[in-house]
Amino acid sequence: MVDLLDDERLDYLLAEDLRIIQSPAVFAFSLDTVLLARFVYVPIQKGNLIDLCTGNGVIPLLLSTRSKAQIKGVEIQERIFNMAQRSVEYNKLSEQIELIHGDIKDMPEKLGHGKFDVVTCNPPYFPTPSDRESEMNNNEHLAIARHEIYCTLEDVVRVSSQLVKQGGKVAFVHRPGRLLDIVTLMRMYKLEPKRLQFVYPKVGKEANTLLIEGIKDGNPDLKILPPLYVYNEKGEYTKELHSILYGDK
Amino acid sequence: MVDLLDDERLDYLLAEDLRIIQSPAVFAFSLDTVLLARFVYVPIQKGNLIDLCTGNGVIPLLLSTRSKAQIKGVEIQERIFNMAQRSVEYNKLSEQIELIHGDIKDMPEKLGHGKFDVVTCNPPYFPTPSDRESEMNNNEHLAIARHEIYCTLEDVVRVSSQLVKQGGKVAFVHRPGRLLDIVTLMRMYKLEPKRLQFVYPKVGKEANTLLIEGIKDGNPDLKILPPLYVYNEKGEYTKELHSILYGDK
Repeated sequence: MVDLLDDERLDYLLAEDLRIIQSPAVFAFSLDTVLLARFVYVPIQKGNLIDLCTGNGVIPLLLSTRSKAQIKGVEIQERIFNMAQRSVEYNKLSEQIELIHGDIKDMPEKLGHGKFDVVTCNPPYFPTPSDRESEMNNNEHLAIARHEIYCTLEDVVRVSSQLVKQGGKVAFVHRPGRLLDIVTLMRMYKLEPKRLQFVYPKVGKEANTLLIEGIKDGNPDLKILPPLYVYNEKGEYTKELHSILYGDK
Repeated sequence: MVDLLDDERLDYLLAEDLRIIQSPAVFAFSLDTVLLARFVYVPIQKGNLIDLCTGNGVIPLLLSTRSKAQIKGVEIQERIFNMAQRSVEYNKLSEQIELIHGDIKDMPEKLGHGKFDVVTCNPPYFPTPSDRESEMNNNEHLAIARHEIYCTLEDVVRVSSQLVKQGGKVAFVHRPGRLLDIVTLMRMYKLEPKRLQFVYPKVGKEANTLLIEGIKDGNPDLKILPPLYVYNEKGEYTKELHSILYGDK
């Protein structure tokens, strides 16, 4: 049993035997978020994980299939936090996943510094629109999720660095055009980039997504992982992506 | 007619109808250098190009097949400069290619600031060996070409930035582990990274080479080009690499 509001749907979350509440008008998760949930290293048996800008909670839900660790998710928009909350309850994951309605910038004070083994974040990708009022009025929920209205990339990197333990991992997904900003900010906040993977829509195209993981106070030693292609020549998911999404071998 | 010293060979330079003098004991060009000569954008009809740390001159020789511009090459080791010089003469390219025996750090003063449309460099990849004397005695020529003995990565980036015009292009090849150092130094010296390509030895492996091009005083807008694979599953050059190396379609 679950209460669905407005145009909300109870979608299947890939092959995970999970369901997730989404709404085209309010929030629906993207491929990028799923890729981040698969990319990040997680401890299997125990630990503390936290996902910032968690949206409808897709990263905590997916991480729960990979780890027995305690997982927190932080979302600033009450309407979307509420969707995530109902999804966690529907999936009977309230013991493992705790959602927090709040501003990520308040979390280090609220949750403590250096308490997490892993921090993930799929942050807003775009700078604040110049005509903020019109975009906000147009669709406030989507605008906040997509634009750096409540948190900038620097906020995300700084807060992640404060939350993670020394030697802990922080992983982000973003657009390749922001690569230099991300790596510069990560180094500024002592998150040494260690694994970088580019996602290409298909063979012969430029990358349109990057996945990056750093280690708090790690030594410089960056690896560039094999590229990930999303679609084959027929416009279908590649075998590799299908396996990432649906878990088949 | 050409004078060959010691163990020097007069090798074919790919499919270019060029020949190049090499020696296993003194200097032989690498695949990375060829990839850089193919990667960089060059003006076709005219302009001024310069290749730093030019070794036996493979980049100037290859660029002469892509551009009618004037091309300079700078090499600090007299023995290797001399090989490059004889190769240029053998190929009757002395009117287009001018080799300079000297230290790249002296070039901005000697050649002027902001005079070049394009600067290329395949710099030494490795920090100075701690046991410098033993490595130097072992093979001084190779040690200087491979280690940051006479020029650091920062020297290379700073000098390139001084030599290139505003809006001109600077391209480097290096190891992925130095990506963060390179992009940080490029931004520090106003060379905005615009095109980045990773080279993978084969499918499923991590990248082992990066190619990067920046524009002096350019706007931030980095593109990640499609990946380049060197070998196929059979251990042969991929079609794409074969075409880059030998110019077939």
